[in-house]
Amino acid sequence: MALLHSSYKQLEEIVGKSNFIHNIEDRICYAYDATGQTYCPDAVIFPKNATEIAEILTLANEHDFYIIPRGSGTGMTGGSLAIKGGVVLAFSQMNRILKVDKDNLIAHVEPGVITGHLQAFVEDMGLFYPPDPSSSDISTIGGNVAECAGGPRAVKYGVTRDYVLGLEVVLPTGEIIQTGVQTKKGVVGYDLTRLFVGSEGTLGIITRIILKLIPKPEAVQTMLVVFDDVNTAAETVFAVRTLSITPRCIEFMDEASIQCANQAVPLGLPAHVKALLIIQVDGSPYQIDRDMERIQQLCYAKGALRVEVSNSSEDTERIWKARKAISPALYMFGKDKINEDIVVPTNRIPDMIKKIDALRTASKLMMVCFGHAGDGNIHVNIMLNKDHSSELEKAEKVIHEVFAYTLELGGTISGEHGIGITKARYMPMEIGKVELALMKKLKTLFDPKGILNPGKLFL
Amino acid sequence: MALLHSSYKQLEEIVGKSNFIHNIEDRICYAYDATGQTYCPDAVIFPKNATEIAEILTLANEHDFYIIPRGSGTGMTGGSLAIKGGVVLAFSQMNRILKVDKDNLIAHVEPGVITGHLQAFVEDMGLFYPPDPSSSDISTIGGNVAECAGGPRAVKYGVTRDYVLGLEVVLPTGEIIQTGVQTKKGVVGYDLTRLFVGSEGTLGIITRIILKLIPKPEAVQTMLVVFDDVNTAAETVFAVRTLSITPRCIEFMDEASIQCANQAVPLGLPAHVKALLIIQVDGSPYQIDRDMERIQQLCYAKGALRVEVSNSSEDTERIWKARKAISPALYMFGKDKINEDIVVPTNRIPDMIKKIDALRTASKLMMVCFGHAGDGNIHVNIMLNKDHSSELEKAEKVIHEVFAYTLELGGTISGEHGIGITKARYMPMEIGKVELALMKKLKTLFDPKGILNPGKLFL
Repeated sequence: MALLHSSYKQLEEIVGKSNFIHNIEDRICYAYDATGQTYCPDAVIFPKNATEIAEILTLANEHDFYIIPRGSGTGMTGGSLAIKGGVVLAFSQMNRILKVDKDNLIAHVEPGVITGHLQAFVEDMGLFYPPDPSSSDISTIGGNVAECAGGPRAVKYGVTRDYVLGLEVVLPTGEIIQTGVQTKKGVVGYDLTRLFVGSEGTLGIITRIILKLIPKPEAVQTMLVVFDDVNTAAETVFAVRTLSITPRCIEFMDEASIQCANQAVPLGLPAHVKALLIIQVDGSPYQIDRDMERIQQLCYAKGALRVEVSNSSEDTERIWKARKAISPALYMFGKDKINEDIVVPTNRIPDMIKKIDALRTASKLMMVCFGHAGDGNIHVNIMLNKDHSSELEKAEKVIHEVFAYTLELGGTISGEHGIGITKARYMPMEIGKVELALMKKLKTLFDPKGILNPGKLFL
Repeated sequence: MALLHSSYKQLEEIVGKSNFIHNIEDRICYAYDATGQTYCPDAVIFPKNATEIAEILTLANEHDFYIIPRGSGTGMTGGSLAIKGGVVLAFSQMNRILKVDKDNLIAHVEPGVITGHLQAFVEDMGLFYPPDPSSSDISTIGGNVAECAGGPRAVKYGVTRDYVLGLEVVLPTGEIIQTGVQTKKGVVGYDLTRLFVGSEGTLGIITRIILKLIPKPEAVQTMLVVFDDVNTAAETVFAVRTLSITPRCIEFMDEASIQCANQAVPLGLPAHVKALLIIQVDGSPYQIDRDMERIQQLCYAKGALRVEVSNSSEDTERIWKARKAISPALYMFGKDKINEDIVVPTNRIPDMIKKIDALRTASKLMMVCFGHAGDGNIHVNIMLNKDHSSELEKAEKVIHEVFAYTLELGGTISGEHGIGITKARYMPMEIGKVELALMKKLKTLFDPKGILNPGKLFL
């Protein structure tokens, strides 16, 4: 890293003195993400455009120092952490919505745009950007693209990948490239666009994103479905998915999640509630009335205790506030969190819930499950004190069992959080040797000197 | 190719004598595709599974001969042509629908399944596979994935890429790999799945495809909108796209296309019709009645001569039969066809139509336009006699101008047909030098000896 220090002057020259920091008080703010782990970068730089980033990467290649791109640091797997030191590239100055083309349902944005800002901006124009990670009030579109963020609405609308039409990217070697198209269709050459989506900042620095938008749904309705048994809730999720209706989302909370949510936003639920679903449908007002009725009937038929249809936007907002509060509120159960992000086929959710129950009983660990059940994506959280090595060891064994069972059911170990540093050692459980070797070769092709976001994905 | 001949015995051993042909009468049947160009392969082989294909590719690497994967040969850009000789790999024996999982809305299929067969099979179960290339009665899913086929329904449902969750692929070097997931979400490692989608059979041989399905829409309605002016039709397309309704398709036909369609299936249209749109909406019966009414009103407001709502499934079938007949019927205007596949932003369709009018007048060439106007994807066809070199030269100049204007409008030179051999020389108009070099490096990474589908994409 001696060479990094000798590059400080050049880095300052590229972006200007005020856009480069290396004093400890400032750079410590860029050491965290949602994993709770901290790695302080050697410096933080705030580029304003692709040209500056190209110069920075060229310099990093010459002088062998690491570059770590970072949105808002809301990642769940450590993708933005400077685990080997180096220079964090922060996008707070590249946060412009460059263009929203209402005629063609397309937006051009810089990576530092806050997802929630973009959503609000386009909704005011009668348009809709469907991907909605729970961190959308804070997370950036650039981070969402790098991780291929999902969120509750993926059931109906798909994930970030499905909305990225084209990109501007600075390659690790310093060239600026354009990928994809500005139109709804396009098949010219290899799909570099989707190769960058979900590559966790390891293949290039995204500097401009062309997003597909859709017309804003006319209306939305929300229901809260309450169960006195977690398995009945899990079976109901699957039953709803066999209707010809595709809800906008089907969120699941187990007992402990409800406790977390309730603490943040009192939901006024009876004490014996063991699980709940938030089901949302959108479309034309007539259509959704009809859909809501059918879903409601089905929920009662499957054994729901109560179905509460939200009657006002305040009501709905309260429900979502509660849902989004779970993740941060989890710390009431322990100072540390192991947060997993499995996906199983929706008809195997009941099996997975039973498995987790058995593991909880056997291990006596505090395990909390919630998530986007509509597409089988369950966030399994273990709350613990990592300082107690026996607890940690037990938790790691449990996680291993959860992953093994997930794969046995035909699932995947990450639906939307990615691999980063926290899951790198588990990746070989899902990805074969040849496939992993191929991925590593791709990394080397794009980043021959390994300067970009080191230590992520691969061990 | 001496080495190829010496491999015949080994190839026969791998697949069995009856699954390997090299007599001219048989292999000539595998020399064609929809481009009208012919290149006779040295041999044709009919593998039954990935293991056999792995052995074939290993042998091809050892003995330096070419392998060309081929579905039904309906490609529009020469992707399946053995332009440098070699062994065509035909998938007629790998045509099983392996599994349709109604509970999880997923299908596993072999690449040789006819797209239309899969559509009918899942529709009988109340499910829906949306991508619908016009060749769907003949084309294979494997070919659709390799080219990232589109079709009319892409306006609402997206293209083949959006339905491929995972793949089994034999790499050119003979390893069998699994990519992607069997679930609706998944972000573990680089997105190899989408890298293979649309790679035109140059990066690997797809041997199994995991597809996402959706519930079958309850009802569909179709309208035929008739115009006495082509520009009004083009402006109407764009106007419909600004409604909050997303139609299932918006197909456009100019005067010459109508003549072609009418010849195949009499549509009973008045003589002065200059353009027409086929607009289809799907959803619940109530919803689509309402959508149809709004679209109809808008069409009249924009200046449509007449809107005919199809009243029976026979009626609708007749309309689609006419639409699908255009491409083959084009030969009434000339013995050769140059078939292009541009996409422009939908609000620039009127500009593109005017440009083509001007080029038609100036060049006196027979130019026919039709296509998936709803997402800006227009098939521009020039009908000519290629033996007349002056005609061909003129046509090539016109194509160049069409492409240049497409790119000027922010479009792409191929929406769904790919590059293959026919567009390889135009690719540098859209793809930059660095991007093209990167794609070539990817090709070399996957296929170091260049044995797989040579001469495609890159010149």
